[in-house]
Amino acid sequence: MARRVAEGKRPVRLDAVLAGGDKGADIYAHNQRKTCAAVGIEYHLHRLPADADVRAVEGLIETLNADPVVTAIMVHLPLPDGVEAERIQSLIDEVKDVEGVNPANIGNIVYGRRSLVPCTALASVEMIESTGVELRGKRCVIVGASNIVGKPIAVLLMRAEATVISTNEYTEDLAGLTRTADVLVSAAGVPGLITRDMVKPGAVVVDVGINRIVGEDGKRRTVGDVDHDGVVSVAGHLSPVPGGVGPMTVAMLLRNTVDAADR
Amino acid sequence: MARRVAEGKRPVRLDAVLAGGDKGADIYAHNQRKTCAAVGIEYHLHRLPADADVRAVEGLIETLNADPVVTAIMVHLPLPDGVEAERIQSLIDEVKDVEGVNPANIGNIVYGRRSLVPCTALASVEMIESTGVELRGKRCVIVGASNIVGKPIAVLLMRAEATVISTNEYTEDLAGLTRTADVLVSAAGVPGLITRDMVKPGAVVVDVGINRIVGEDGKRRTVGDVDHDGVVSVAGHLSPVPGGVGPMTVAMLLRNTVDAADR
Repeated sequence: MARRVAEGKRPVRLDAVLAGGDKGADIYAHNQRKTCAAVGIEYHLHRLPADADVRAVEGLIETLNADPVVTAIMVHLPLPDGVEAERIQSLIDEVKDVEGVNPANIGNIVYGRRSLVPCTALASVEMIESTGVELRGKRCVIVGASNIVGKPIAVLLMRAEATVISTNEYTEDLAGLTRTADVLVSAAGVPGLITRDMVKPGAVVVDVGINRIVGEDGKRRTVGDVDHDGVVSVAGHLSPVPGGVGPMTVAMLLRNTVDAADR
Repeated sequence: MARRVAEGKRPVRLDAVLAGGDKGADIYAHNQRKTCAAVGIEYHLHRLPADADVRAVEGLIETLNADPVVTAIMVHLPLPDGVEAERIQSLIDEVKDVEGVNPANIGNIVYGRRSLVPCTALASVEMIESTGVELRGKRCVIVGASNIVGKPIAVLLMRAEATVISTNEYTEDLAGLTRTADVLVSAAGVPGLITRDMVKPGAVVVDVGINRIVGEDGKRRTVGDVDHDGVVSVAGHLSPVPGGVGPMTVAMLLRNTVDAADR
């Protein structure tokens, strides 16, 4: 990453918007600054007050869109009350949209174009591909169909010519489907949802869930959707939580940022 | 339709681009003009020569995008050699893109926004909904995963909270999957692919295939992907070919055209 940053056509920078936000967003922005520094990406954080209105946020996005030195834009969530995230995300110039949240970038996936793909979906598919599995013709089951994770993963796997099964909370006989999966991606946000009996031996399992729970010892900890201790012995590959998709998503954001500067 | 055209805020018109094209495109444009006349939509056909280059086609699209009286644009295929369809389609202003071929409109489906949805996908889903089936939690199998039909249908059905299974030519045990389908959509372009034994009793079956074949009598005729005579007795609903999705797609183009003028 650092080498690509140093060798690029122009300085690589990431412009992040934080309007109001919360403690989680502050921590994320702080870590983002450190991570960018580590690989030589300039980080510019643009803060707006918690009572900023939609015109103020839109105005900032338009200013960043128009500025030729700005090549990569991301927007921290949550936004202030009354400012709809999808409206703001749609406004980001699609070639600077390094989180891949502009609908044009999601549509570009369908068309199989080189574009900025939503980072968590991209991270999941990169991890699957890193196992060396040939996706064409393989059966992939995705648990959860959110707009920013489950649906884009499904489309990316369709693009790879897999047989793709998209499930959600209304799906009947979920276990009957997951047991047939060569590749199983869980992005449901339900701790322990995927148990050992739901996994085909040797399957590639990607755990996208990041759930905060209180353990039996009374301490808070972070777990995925997959019952790790049960599934690890039957799966061929299993991504951990914490670790796994989380840091890989950050890496994809940085790669999209470098790609955007390279354009 | 005619009533909505007459009562709209401004005159409804459809501007079609035909660059070179072929006999099929000429027939399509001729029928389009007649159909538009029947419902009171102004039809403007913009012809470019068969040797038009990419700059000429792009220039015409940009002119139509900029013209405030133009509210609906569609581009006939094929385009001249060397003019890539997806590049031209991406250039159509997304609010005038009544065929729903701009990636932004495909991405808007993922986000569940009111937008111009690809006409054949929209036609298929409208026909499914017309049966009164409750899609939430139902198992939907789509045979074929093309960019403009199979993938957008899959996303539309995900949006309806169905369990969605996207298959393609590499899928193993296709019949095992289709037999579980409450809703079966075939968009593979393979005559007679879907036989009686592949259909669950009572299923809703939508046949998107439009295949020209030579029959046993030596005459050319149009058939779908579904073996109609075999499947009709087991399916709960079956759309015919010819008829069915074809004319419904034209209707969706006209509805998108009226919607675009209403904006």
